[in-house]
Parts: sequence; structure tokens; C-alpha cells
Amino acid sequence: MSPRRAVVLLSGGLDSSTCLLVARRDGCEVHALSFDYGQRHAVELERARALVERVGAAAHRIIRIDVPGPSASALTDRSVPVPRDQLGQDAIPITYVPARNTLFLAHAVAWGETLGAPDIYIGANALDYSGYPDCRPEFLEAFERAANLGTKAGVEGRLAFRIRAPLLRLTKAEIVALAAGLGLDFRLTSSCYDPRPDGRPCGGCDACLLREKGFREAGIEDPLLKY
Amino acid sequence: MSPRRAVVLLSGGLDSSTCLLVARRDGCEVHALSFDYGQRHAVELERARALVERVGAAAHRIIRIDVPGPSASALTDRSVPVPRDQLGQDAIPITYVPARNTLFLAHAVAWGETLGAPDIYIGANALDYSGYPDCRPEFLEAFERAANLGTKAGVEGRLAFRIRAPLLRLTKAEIVALAAGLGLDFRLTSSCYDPRPDGRPCGGCDACLLREKGFREAGIEDPLLKY
Repeated sequence: MSPRRAVVLLSGGLDSSTCLLVARRDGCEVHALSFDYGQRHAVELERARALVERVGAAAHRIIRIDVPGPSASALTDRSVPVPRDQLGQDAIPITYVPARNTLFLAHAVAWGETLGAPDIYIGANALDYSGYPDCRPEFLEAFERAANLGTKAGVEGRLAFRIRAPLLRLTKAEIVALAAGLGLDFRLTSSCYDPRPDGRPCGGCDACLLREKGFREAGIEDPLLKY
Repeated sequence: MSPRRAVVLLSGGLDSSTCLLVARRDGCEVHALSFDYGQRHAVELERARALVERVGAAAHRIIRIDVPGPSASALTDRSVPVPRDQLGQDAIPITYVPARNTLFLAHAVAWGETLGAPDIYIGANALDYSGYPDCRPEFLEAFERAANLGTKAGVEGRLAFRIRAPLLRLTKAEIVALAAGLGLDFRLTSSCYDPRPDGRPCGGCDACLLREKGFREAGIEDPLLKY
């Protein structure tokens, strides 16, 4: 019997890289999907490529997405500074990219339907996260429903799409521990929203602060901070 | 008071062109959105441009979408012939493009959020249509729900996205009559899936057959058939 196919959304960050290893552990044939949407932290994509090269995948596509401009997101608009030391505020941060996971999941479902891959893995996390609405379980459930109603394979019952978010209810420390257990080489990930020209993390953005907290609480040293 | 903004999905076909005029009649400031997804009927995009030039819009974006290949759709894969004279069969036809409206709507919501445009117009029709699952009301409702849960503007209550499908329950004849009443120049539309090199319709694909039926029942002459 051939293995179950899965599309794994792979940003090159810690969470999605862990997710890729979870999909492999689950026995899936992994088809990795990354996006170039003009993000200022494009070093992510280099790490995504390197990770796939290291651990292997049936395929890896990097899709260019044309996001509407000005998006007024600090992740894509270089005139908007990435905020520092603002973690834990209630508002959805300025690093939010309009409908990003909706776009990513739409592409994943399109590819999944073509491949015959019912499982779509996404590294969404609703615990130690930046507060993005498109990382919450209620959104993922609603999207899964739409995917099954809006595809030929879903309607004909050949595929039952499942949006799998295995990290959804883990703390960042638990994600770090899980990744370590699965043998993830953390040097092949990048979390920072605003990396230095040489790719090293800034240390102050939400993503850096969350990553630092996760490693600290897991009692594991982050190799990215060694250099 | 400034007019309500709307994103209108404009393929350049009869239905979406009618939809654009409906959005204008509804008093919306229209932002038209078209897609280049490698469709063999790219003459649609020329017509979409010409229509926007004729009737005006606040903006018109044409986004390139990278659909997974081989998609096994006759609309994007030139090795798959477009079927002729098959209208009315039960199965979802080979011209189905995986998750196409999911991708289109995802882009529309991303742009709508950026613009502050709550209304997304789509020319979906569930009566005289090809049987695509992503034209059915249950899909559109599910997607609307996902859009409101997965966007900052939706969650914060600043925008309540509405997927508006004003043609959903009209026959093709009713669409033709509506379009005529709104002054649509039918020469600026193209419905054929497999047009001749000069852009003229093939006359035999599902889309041509549906269009022909609609004009005939509406008692209106299709100017595209005059040449």
C-alpha cells in the first residue's frame, strides 16, 4: 500500500518545520509547499529549502503569491517597522498579513486535490502565538468545511480534506521539545520577522521573543543564538 | 459619504461581467480582480481589460496564480481536450480546475481586507452551470464564514465580509436579460473554454452551449456569433 499523501505548509519557521517532521512521523508521503509573498524575512525560504534537502520530501514547491499592496503589514511593507518587545498585547499585531493562511490553505487544497492528498498540515499554534486570527481552531475548521464543499474530490467523496494542525494546542516549549525529539536541526529554521542581512535573528520581534521563551522553558539551547 | 467598496471577481465571461455591472448598480466602488492561471481561454483577460476600460472601475488587478501541474483540467492542460456537446451530464466536468474559486475568493478577501471592501462579488451560478462544486451556495456560505473568522478586519468587527453571488439562482436567460438591461456590451465578454486563435467561440463546449441557450431563451442575439 502506498503511503498517505500530505501537503505540508512549510514557511521555514520553527513551527512549520516541526510540522513537516510530524507528518513524516505520521507515515505520510510529504509534499512541501512554501510561499514567496514578498516577506522581508525571505531567509525563511532558504531554510525551508535546506530542511527539505536534509530530510527529504516527495516534492517541494515554492509559489509566488501576489499580495495586494500596500498591505500595511510590517512583514511585507518595508516602510512599516517591525515592532519590538510588544509580545502579550491584546491587539492583532501589525505583522498580520491579510488573509495569509486563507491564501496558503487555498493553494494547499488545490495541490492536495491534484495529488490526491487529503491531509493538509499547518503549523498553526493558538497558545504561544502572535494573536493572528487565521491561526485559531475556529478558522481552520471553517476552512476545512469550505475545502470539502468546494472541491470535486471533496464533493465526490474521493478525498476528505483534513486541515491538520498538530501544534495547535502546544506551548512553544512543547513544540521545541517535540522538534528536538524528532531530530529537527534547529539551524535549518528561522523564526525572526526582521532578520539581519546575514540571516541572524534580531532578537526583539514577537517571533524572536516567542522562540527564545520556548527554548528557555524547554531547557534547550537555540543553536541560532550561538553565532 | 464615500461609496461602499466591493471587490468583483471578473473573469471576462458573461456572468462575471454582468456581476460587475450589478455591483455598480448597487452603488459600489468597484475594484475588479482577474486571474491569469494559465487558462487556454486567455482571451477572457483581454475582454476583462476592455470591459473595465469601457465602464470604468476604481482599480483592476490581474493576478498570476500558479496552479499545480498537471492539474488534469482541460482548461489549463493543453493535452486534455475540451469536451464538446456534453452539457447536462451528471459528473463534474473535466474543465473543473482544482479549488479555483477557493483561490480566487482567497485573493479577493485579502484585497478586500486591505481596501476596506466588505463585499466580494462573484458571478457564480448554480442553475444553468457546468456543475462545478465551487459555484454552489453551500460552498460560498462556508467560505464566507472562513473569511470572517480568518481575517483581522472580520474578527475585530470592522468588516463583515459578504460573498455576493447575485446570479446564483438565475437562469442563463435571466442573466442575459439582466445584462442587457444594465447595458452590457456583450462583445466585451467571452465565454468559450476553447476559443479559436482569433478569439471567436468554438460553439461546442459547455460554456458555448450554455451561452447559446441563454441568448436564445432571452430572445436576444449574441453579437459574438455575428462574425
